[in-house]
Amino acid sequence: MAENIRSWTLGELGAMVGAYEIIEPEKVILRGAPAGEGDPDAITFAGDQRYLDKCLVTDVGAIIVSPSVGGLRRPCLVVSDPRVAFFTIMAAMIRPIPAYPGIHPTALTDPDAKIHDSVRIGPYAVIESGAEIHAGAVIHAHGYIGEGCSVGQKSVLMPRVTLIQDVQIGARCLLHSGVVIGADGFGFVWTGEKHQKIPQVGGVVVEDDVEIGANTCIDRATVGVTRIGRGTKLDNLIQIGHNVKMGADNVMAGQAGVAGSATIGARVTTGGQVAIGDHMEVTDDVILGGRTGVMSNIADKGTYFGTPPVPIHQAMRAMALQQRMPELFKRLRELESRLARLTPREDDTPQ
Amino acid sequence: MAENIRSWTLGELGAMVGAYEIIEPEKVILRGAPAGEGDPDAITFAGDQRYLDKCLVTDVGAIIVSPSVGGLRRPCLVVSDPRVAFFTIMAAMIRPIPAYPGIHPTALTDPDAKIHDSVRIGPYAVIESGAEIHAGAVIHAHGYIGEGCSVGQKSVLMPRVTLIQDVQIGARCLLHSGVVIGADGFGFVWTGEKHQKIPQVGGVVVEDDVEIGANTCIDRATVGVTRIGRGTKLDNLIQIGHNVKMGADNVMAGQAGVAGSATIGARVTTGGQVAIGDHMEVTDDVILGGRTGVMSNIADKGTYFGTPPVPIHQAMRAMALQQRMPELFKRLRELESRLARLTPREDDTPQ
Amino acid sequence: MAENIRSWTLGELGAMVGAYEIIEPEKVILRGAPAGEGDPDAITFAGDQRYLDKCLVTDVGAIIVSPSVGGLRRPCLVVSDPRVAFFTIMAAMIRPIPAYPGIHPTALTDPDAKIHDSVRIGPYAVIESGAEIHAGAVIHAHGYIGEGCSVGQKSVLMPRVTLIQDVQIGARCLLHSGVVIGADGFGFVWTGEKHQKIPQVGGVVVEDDVEIGANTCIDRATVGVTRIGRGTKLDNLIQIGHNVKMGADNVMAGQAGVAGSATIGARVTTGGQVAIGDHMEVTDDVILGGRTGVMSNIADKGTYFGTPPVPIHQAMRAMALQQRMPELFKRLRELESRLARLTPREDDTPQ
Repeated sequence: MAENIRSWTLGELGAMVGAYEIIEPEKVILRGAPAGEGDPDAITFAGDQRYLDKCLVTDVGAIIVSPSVGGLRRPCLVVSDPRVAFFTIMAAMIRPIPAYPGIHPTALTDPDAKIHDSVRIGPYAVIESGAEIHAGAVIHAHGYIGEGCSVGQKSVLMPRVTLIQDVQIGARCLLHSGVVIGADGFGFVWTGEKHQKIPQVGGVVVEDDVEIGANTCIDRATVGVTRIGRGTKLDNLIQIGHNVKMGADNVMAGQAGVAGSATIGARVTTGGQVAIGDHMEVTDDVILGGRTGVMSNIADKGTYFGTPPVPIHQAMRAMALQQRMPELFKRLRELESRLARLTPREDDTPQ
Repeated sequence: MAENIRSWTLGELGAMVGAYEIIEPEKVILRGAPAGEGDPDAITFAGDQRYLDKCLVTDVGAIIVSPSVGGLRRPCLVVSDPRVAFFTIMAAMIRPIPAYPGIHPTALTDPDAKIHDSVRIGPYAVIESGAEIHAGAVIHAHGYIGEGCSVGQKSVLMPRVTLIQDVQIGARCLLHSGVVIGADGFGFVWTGEKHQKIPQVGGVVVEDDVEIGANTCIDRATVGVTRIGRGTKLDNLIQIGHNVKMGADNVMAGQAGVAGSATIGARVTTGGQVAIGDHMEVTDDVILGGRTGVMSNIADKGTYFGTPPVPIHQAMRAMALQQRMPELFKRLRELESRLARLTPREDDTPQ
Repeated sequence: MAENIRSWTLGELGAMVGAYEIIEPEKVILRGAPAGEGDPDAITFAGDQRYLDKCLVTDVGAIIVSPSVGGLRRPCLVVSDPRVAFFTIMAAMIRPIPAYPGIHPTALTDPDAKIHDSVRIGPYAVIESGAEIHAGAVIHAHGYIGEGCSVGQKSVLMPRVTLIQDVQIGARCLLHSGVVIGADGFGFVWTGEKHQKIPQVGGVVVEDDVEIGANTCIDRATVGVTRIGRGTKLDNLIQIGHNVKMGADNVMAGQAGVAGSATIGARVTTGGQVAIGDHMEVTDDVILGGRTGVMSNIADKGTYFGTPPVPIHQAMRAMALQQRMPELFKRLRELESRLARLTPREDDTPQ
């Protein structure tokens, strides 16, 4: 760990979260720990008695507990909501990764790029012609901001993010390392001799408050734009095809794929490895279980699972019964043989 | 968008595609739009009356229509094939991303690399010993061309492409950002104590006219080469294992995976998230539906779906029936009880 | 191929593997070839008569055979175990990719980073404050070693590896290009208005002798650490979520995904595209077939397949029977109609 990470006394942390009681306020805390993990320099929290029991057998430095827990004899904070207090403290412990104050001398910025004075740009970043970087944005090391791309206020591009061309990133977005936005959509026409490329000249719009996970790809539109709605959160290694329209406040887990021209509503939650076929439409407030494969439109809100997706309870029942296929065949054979003994088939009978 | 993107008059565009008629030739057009999307600076096309109706209610700048459409009162081009004309215009609107004219001063090129005079190499690229870059090729920013790699004539490597060692890229290829070619194949032998690495010393051959999507990985062969056939198009986030042989003119959609030593024929089309197992063989002219899992060889051309893959109509029927498993069990139980009433089982009868 | 690759005489290679007999020891060999592939400059091996037959019809430069093969009239090595001899020779043919002897002048190393004298760092790498790079480690071109990260002795980071913050890499690890370790875990709480980010302040520990494939992502823990056990091998494009604990000597094939807080034992082997759900537990010595989806804990060692995973023989049987669903329905209908003719349902009868 870095030697320059700061430390807190338990007293400081208690004041931060308005603790009713602080036992051993002079205790020094360096970091958080999951409930039940030992670490004498860490603070953790116990939401209920079960977690408290798990914490008490470890050497964790301090525990955040609720007032219903009486008389702990070790470093602790007593607060009304231990979980909220813990996340408040964790938020204070976030150390933004180092950012050069200004434009690093090795960063290459095209004279035709517009870069706000408050922008920080890391080493070896490349900012091409026509790019705009707005106030408070941070482009970390090895970033590539292509021609005609813009990055909104206070957005942060972690090291090694690539925006190819005509990509608009909104305000307060967070793009993780390895993200590629604006690569060509995947479109070809078979001429009878070869796959002729369909020109890919559209853009990408990522609205405000979007987070995009490591090594995720969002393709540019064929024409028009691929759009990721405000407040949407994408996990790692996701593929978003050309001309996809994704609404506000989606949450999409890792390795999901959305094929070209699909349209997804608002507040859609998607499990890992989900696939949404090209041109599919998924309405608002849909939940798709992990690895669901969307092959036809989903017009009603609800929770779906499977390929094709069906309401989750139905999917779970069908999935469970699938394991009983051998039994099914056995029972069927038995019925057939009993019926055959009872009454030979008409076409088998001599008369 | 970049301020330096060029504009066209509708007259110029009409001349480009040999329009029969041009209404408002002085109208200025900046870009294309999908049919039915509004944008006063854009041109779109209407292949039939339904799309024309969608276009007419928008403020799109101009519409390309066929001669059967009479008397439009707004900016338009009349051509024999609106779709072809539209793509011709879109192709003219492609703006290759900025490329340094020559070798950027920050690019590091090993003295033992052979680089044609016409090659353009972007900032912070690294070209190692023994690499060869042929006429007209472009290596964009942050490229890494490893030892003994070659890049063929007019191939373009978008920013941040990595070729590790002994990777041959043909002519007129297009490699998107984040591509990694030539990383070690995944091979280990369990010694009883640890996973012993099998040396990975082969190469990769990517033939002419191949396109490879963002963040896709193609591993080097254990020995010999991994081969991607001429004209093949790979989408984003695809994994190609060591010693895979892929024929000409394949099209493979995003997040598909091909395990080690699989052999794929020519003109094979593969949906998203497909998996092809190690050492599998897939013949020419096969279509694999999305997420199909190939567990045994496919020797006959055709369209397959599912895991294991079966002819698509069969797969769709089985998939549909799977949702009716609960009904199946219910009908079976009913039959059993009716038959039981009719004739008790022999082993149940008292006599 | 690079012109500076070295060559061996068959005599040298024979001495290297203790060959009983060497035919044409002066023959020059440049590389290996898979059994059955022609290449006059390559050596291959024939483990049995079938492979020998395949080799003999090619122009391969030399063949490694066992003593049971008599009187070959072409360049060969006779050894007790041709396969082991071949891999010994291939290991000798590994050419580590070029590494700058020391710290490349363009590499940026923070004064607060601790870098052992023997470390080699490639061009355009960035080493942040508080990083530690131990003896014999190699950071290739474009590497990013974030704040508070450490790289153990003799570990090699191929070009373009990114360690974000508080990531510990053990000794003798091999990280392939495009790897991202330490990006934020994917955790949000819906407030009723937006997805509130849960602070992600934990680290990642990658133990000794781990290999991580190209473009694979391992997220940092929310608090505590995400842990990859000693000797584990991860293939390309894998996603490992926050707070995952993976034991020693796992082998995980490409495009697998492990969701947050899952716990995996030791010696677990995982096929391609497998998914392991959040908080799942998988015990030691489990094998998961390709694309298996783990939805509940696996407490017994064994080989599993499917979603949900069941013992593989059971899964294969259910999978095969699934294709016979149409037949099942047909037989059921037939039974129903025979039974109806035999005896009308009670509720159908008039009386």
